[in-house]
Amino acid sequence: YDDISDCIDLIICLGGDGTLLYASSLFQGSVPPVMAFHLGSLGFLTPFKFELYRTEVAKVLEGNAAITLRSRLKVKVVKDMLQRAGQQPENREPQLEHNGLLPHGHTNSEDGKVTLQLQVLNEVVVDRGPSSYLSNVDLYLDGRLITSVQGDGVIVSTPTGSTAYAAAAGASMIHPNVPAIMVTPICPHSLSFRPIVVPAGVELMITLSPDARNNVWVSFDGRRRQEIQHGDCIKITTSCYPVPSICCHDLVYDWFESLAQNTAEGIRFA
Amino acid sequence: YDDISDCIDLIICLGGDGTLLYASSLFQGSVPPVMAFHLGSLGFLTPFKFELYRTEVAKVLEGNAAITLRSRLKVKVVKDMLQRAGQQPENREPQLEHNGLLPHGHTNSEDGKVTLQLQVLNEVVVDRGPSSYLSNVDLYLDGRLITSVQGDGVIVSTPTGSTAYAAAAGASMIHPNVPAIMVTPICPHSLSFRPIVVPAGVELMITLSPDARNNVWVSFDGRRRQEIQHGDCIKITTSCYPVPSICCHDLVYDWFESLAQNTAEGIRFA
Amino acid sequence: YDDISDCIDLIICLGGDGTLLYASSLFQGSVPPVMAFHLGSLGFLTPFKFELYRTEVAKVLEGNAAITLRSRLKVKVVKDMLQRAGQQPENREPQLEHNGLLPHGHTNSEDGKVTLQLQVLNEVVVDRGPSSYLSNVDLYLDGRLITSVQGDGVIVSTPTGSTAYAAAAGASMIHPNVPAIMVTPICPHSLSFRPIVVPAGVELMITLSPDARNNVWVSFDGRRRQEIQHGDCIKITTSCYPVPSICCHDLVYDWFESLAQNTAEGIRFA
Amino acid sequence: YDDISDCIDLIICLGGDGTLLYASSLFQGSVPPVMAFHLGSLGFLTPFKFELYRTEVAKVLEGNAAITLRSRLKVKVVKDMLQRAGQQPENREPQLEHNGLLPHGHTNSEDGKVTLQLQVLNEVVVDRGPSSYLSNVDLYLDGRLITSVQGDGVIVSTPTGSTAYAAAAGASMIHPNVPAIMVTPICPHSLSFRPIVVPAGVELMITLSPDARNNVWVSFDGRRRQEIQHGDCIKITTSCYPVPSICCHDLVYDWFESLAQNTAEGIRFA
Repeated sequence: YDDISDCIDLIICLGGDGTLLYASSLFQGSVPPVMAFHLGSLGFLTPFKFELYRTEVAKVLEGNAAITLRSRLKVKVVKDMLQRAGQQPENREPQLEHNGLLPHGHTNSEDGKVTLQLQVLNEVVVDRGPSSYLSNVDLYLDGRLITSVQGDGVIVSTPTGSTAYAAAAGASMIHPNVPAIMVTPICPHSLSFRPIVVPAGVELMITLSPDARNNVWVSFDGRRRQEIQHGDCIKITTSCYPVPSICCHDLVYDWFESLAQNTAEGIRFA
Repeated sequence: YDDISDCIDLIICLGGDGTLLYASSLFQGSVPPVMAFHLGSLGFLTPFKFELYRTEVAKVLEGNAAITLRSRLKVKVVKDMLQRAGQQPENREPQLEHNGLLPHGHTNSEDGKVTLQLQVLNEVVVDRGPSSYLSNVDLYLDGRLITSVQGDGVIVSTPTGSTAYAAAAGASMIHPNVPAIMVTPICPHSLSFRPIVVPAGVELMITLSPDARNNVWVSFDGRRRQEIQHGDCIKITTSCYPVPSICCHDLVYDWFESLAQNTAEGIRFA
Repeated sequence: YDDISDCIDLIICLGGDGTLLYASSLFQGSVPPVMAFHLGSLGFLTPFKFELYRTEVAKVLEGNAAITLRSRLKVKVVKDMLQRAGQQPENREPQLEHNGLLPHGHTNSEDGKVTLQLQVLNEVVVDRGPSSYLSNVDLYLDGRLITSVQGDGVIVSTPTGSTAYAAAAGASMIHPNVPAIMVTPICPHSLSFRPIVVPAGVELMITLSPDARNNVWVSFDGRRRQEIQHGDCIKITTSCYPVPSICCHDLVYDWFESLAQNTAEGIRFA
Repeated sequence: YDDISDCIDLIICLGGDGTLLYASSLFQGSVPPVMAFHLGSLGFLTPFKFELYRTEVAKVLEGNAAITLRSRLKVKVVKDMLQRAGQQPENREPQLEHNGLLPHGHTNSEDGKVTLQLQVLNEVVVDRGPSSYLSNVDLYLDGRLITSVQGDGVIVSTPTGSTAYAAAAGASMIHPNVPAIMVTPICPHSLSFRPIVVPAGVELMITLSPDARNNVWVSFDGRRRQEIQHGDCIKITTSCYPVPSICCHDLVYDWFESLAQNTAEGIRFA
């Protein structure tokens, strides 16, 4: 992928927010500037109108373009394969491969651990998956246990992702320029548990709570869903590879335009 | 089960809300009065303190007891087995049996349809299951399409269930004596979609939306999870078999006591 | 007003929800059937399209009309005038008169109490008024203290009112046919305090909490705002004079149509 | 006040969050470090336990203390006195003086405008005041109209203030180190209007909407409430005088401790 990144100077993205999410996932290192056109209705990530593409592209090529650096999250999943091997020795590794983790993530094996690393633009979701039972995870911040989250799950999102799934789960909407990470519980068992916003740069870690009786599932921008067991952990911090998004008007205007459109019509996610 | 019901005059339930949910599920027809003790902390359904069981049971046996009739929902799932047979002829029926639907539900086969019928005390949940994608279902009321729900899913609950999973999804809390059915979207895509409360006695129906690309999953008081495909439907109405719950003090006091306790500490569900 | 009521067989209301609220306030006893046309966009209370008035009125006069009985709340404010007299003897009574309470309400003086009684169609609101400080009131149900509410205030509404101010404060939306009363805290200090729904027919009472340091204000369908002091109380129960609203299509269709329209565009209240 | 600031090296604050709010309001310019003890239960702003004051103060004097710079908002209210003079020539200026605006704020008169400037630590609140009617204000960001807010009002808060009144109005909770400003509607008429978080440093402006029929009221950390009319405006930006708060443990621990305590027990504000 680094190869791709080196050869590409500008990404032109045609579609919806999902298209841009996919495009950015192709660049796990640095990302070239992205100019995103919405083919349907105006999205949060796709400010340009396709009908005007000639003049808009010309303007950008002339250098008349503001850029928003949309932060991403670097997510590292460390799986305890020894424990897994003990339980179900034969079929776990192939499942990982089936999920495309080995080729896409940077995996390695030390002390029986397999590590997967990914950059996400919207969010990491930890949820109860196919289970009907509450998920029960512990949240650490800079190595210290902050809280346990019981409920349908928890969303760790960028400001960009605050207007996606996190908004549906009750989060406030954060402008992409705010250097922050948002943690949003999904249908939490504790009615007073609110979404929280912490500074960009902290390291979050999520594990199953010691007394959790069910595994949870993690997904990355709605993709590569996989199971998290006791002994595994998910580490999340601000990525050093943001997505440089070319603004249509400017940072403020674009964001509020998309807010107005999407909060009225319904946000789109996953 | 009707046999059981005929032989039992009083249920004494020791445990938590989950215990009472289970106990009531054993009575798919009429239910004898239930006296429920909480072994842990005070629950919504378990008002009696175990330490006082001698005097409390004595009082009840003397006839000094107010009763709340907690309404249940009668849920009927109609599955189009012909369509399934076309797809995956060999393994669907066994899965049903594995989920315990045949023995517990009243199933029959006419025109390739299999019907399952159950009474729930808290709620029917329709959700996206193991999928990372939005669920997309249509909601009918008395045969008329009312709305589509896009999001993590939808909860149809009794007033009793309004303080369980529905509360975590943002619902208001309904006293068990209000004759109503509550419909609560789970993390809806439309930010203005609020939980709605309709009169007891209406017939609700849920199906996959015609353009839904993913199946959804249904569960009954957190149990008997199963997949819903195009062609299937879920019919829900107020059951004529409520659960007669013996009050500890009275209907008003018991409910507000349990509210005070549980909204502070966190509701418990599933 | 009873006179008016006796002479009128049908109310035809042209305007918006506010017009109907006002019209119904003119009938403090029984109310003739109301046929409400929206002159602007579709409201919750005004289902008929004005353009079609000829045919619609004709249909109704022929007797082809379903009717929803929209419950009202009977609100009784008992003010301790002796206490007031002690404090500010000269100017309180005139203020009452200025607010139009004496002529419209049924007031009397016994033991220095002045009683005001009103029927509301949407809600009674108790709030902090011009104060910047939290309001602090106690809520009684059937004579028993249920909870204290600290925050901006509390809304007691009918199902009809659940889609007005209460919705803005986070309440679920209740179909007008559900026999219930809704209690919704406004920006409560306790983050786990949810709106609650109790059966129609209970008697609610609101007073200042004993340790409240600021008076609160009460208003009735957004009108007749007045101050509540220590010693005063507000009693609320379901009125025996509902508003018979003529349906345009039927009860279910009308309500969901207005929901769809108004949750997308923004509810209207006060 | 600058005089005070120059002579004071350390503020020791005994009481609750309100005490610290008041103390910080005394320093309209730069603020010396604040060490805040809670005399009641743990607050958001008062991490130190009074019982341990000897050892805690000693530690701080030795220089062993982490400091959080809690951002404040600089709020400038520009009132069009000419317009007011036309309306009510005799009594407006005295009211201002009564509210303490002249001595505390930096006021001046140019072109008939009177300007008041204040630093707030929690929030600026614009609300409907004693009116029963919706407030209707326009919100500008960096000079551009972003949105109109119809409802009970709007809260512009610091991250510190996000856990106060804004939380009661539904906002997410922002760590004090996130450089941001939060805008939270109070009971908004539009059900999809969510709290939004914008980068520190932007300039917000609030005015009555052109078609607003009622004045609104503004208050500053719950104080100095005053009326805003057509022609007035409120300008808000991040202050260059934050409040240096001495941490008890460290920034992360203190904040999550206070969150855990206060979300369970109820936040305190105003």
